[in-house]
Amino acid sequence: MTLQIYGDRISGNCLKVKWTADYLSVPYRWIDIDVLKDEAKTPAFLALNPAGQVPTVVLEDGRVLAQSNAIITYLAEGSDLIPVDTYDRAKMLEWMYWEQYSHEPYIAVVRFQRHMMGKSADQIEPRLIERGYGALARMETGLAGRAYLASDRATLADVALVAYTRLAPQGGFDMQAYPLVQAWIARVEADLNITD
Amino acid sequence: MTLQIYGDRISGNCLKVKWTADYLSVPYRWIDIDVLKDEAKTPAFLALNPAGQVPTVVLEDGRVLAQSNAIITYLAEGSDLIPVDTYDRAKMLEWMYWEQYSHEPYIAVVRFQRHMMGKSADQIEPRLIERGYGALARMETGLAGRAYLASDRATLADVALVAYTRLAPQGGFDMQAYPLVQAWIARVEADLNITD
Repeated sequence: MTLQIYGDRISGNCLKVKWTADYLSVPYRWIDIDVLKDEAKTPAFLALNPAGQVPTVVLEDGRVLAQSNAIITYLAEGSDLIPVDTYDRAKMLEWMYWEQYSHEPYIAVVRFQRHMMGKSADQIEPRLIERGYGALARMETGLAGRAYLASDRATLADVALVAYTRLAPQGGFDMQAYPLVQAWIARVEADLNITD
Repeated sequence: MTLQIYGDRISGNCLKVKWTADYLSVPYRWIDIDVLKDEAKTPAFLALNPAGQVPTVVLEDGRVLAQSNAIITYLAEGSDLIPVDTYDRAKMLEWMYWEQYSHEPYIAVVRFQRHMMGKSADQIEPRLIERGYGALARMETGLAGRAYLASDRATLADVALVAYTRLAPQGGFDMQAYPLVQAWIARVEADLNITD
């Protein structure tokens, strides 16, 4: 059985999995799940993933795996997207956990509320915007003097973080103060052939 | 130079690192950082970790690593806390990312507000409590028919999740409906010699 990816193309978390599979030439079948229509909360989908979240993948042997950053790590094992150096690999994980805790809940959530739910800037909780800018500033610092976040080439840290950082303008975030982040987005998009 | 762990013992995220180092007999020096006194936000600490978060470790060679789940993965590489089986290892990561995104922001935050800030139950945002119970229910489902989350013995997924789950009662969470979770807490505490 081919790997099946249950995902929604409006979700950066889902696109991470698509880009990684495409980059590594892993064959897969994509199954659209419309998050806005609560298709990840149906009894059928909850039987697959009790957390009711996409992306969720069904592996070749029928076993199920969830959480975007866990899935891309599984797919990329042994590839050049995971550094061989122990410290670089640990830094990659540091950025990936930071992404889920200190970046996605602000950058992705604000983008969702503005771009998907059609809220105006003044309908967004100011704390979310403030912390979103905090995350962009943290990335700008992290990219000082280096081309990629965790190693001297693109790793899963860059895959994980480019997903929503490139969509930050859809959340109304002004990227002008983050030139290193802007250059890094273009670099990672080119390396991974990201167009969608 | 000995490994240095900057942490606060009131933080489950910091204790994860302590327990892992103790379990693996990794020598370290513990440096207390009082989060309530904003000691992770001083210029000196921000120079170490620009994210201003604990735990942060300084490795033997002086390099810095942050994010609890990245640190314990670094420490535990090659040990029995990380499954050799590819799928079990991926499930371990799934639980660890889920912990940071869907468990810690509710279970740990509610516990912090009640136990550390002294808020009463009705001063807590109901959404946080509701999602905390959702996380406990998700764990109860995940433990059906198995003793540990990701493998047939304790892994980093259990270390990561036991940290705040065992403190959930300090947040006012009633554990009665989660007998599998309760038994699992006792099991993991015994396996890892967790007393603090």
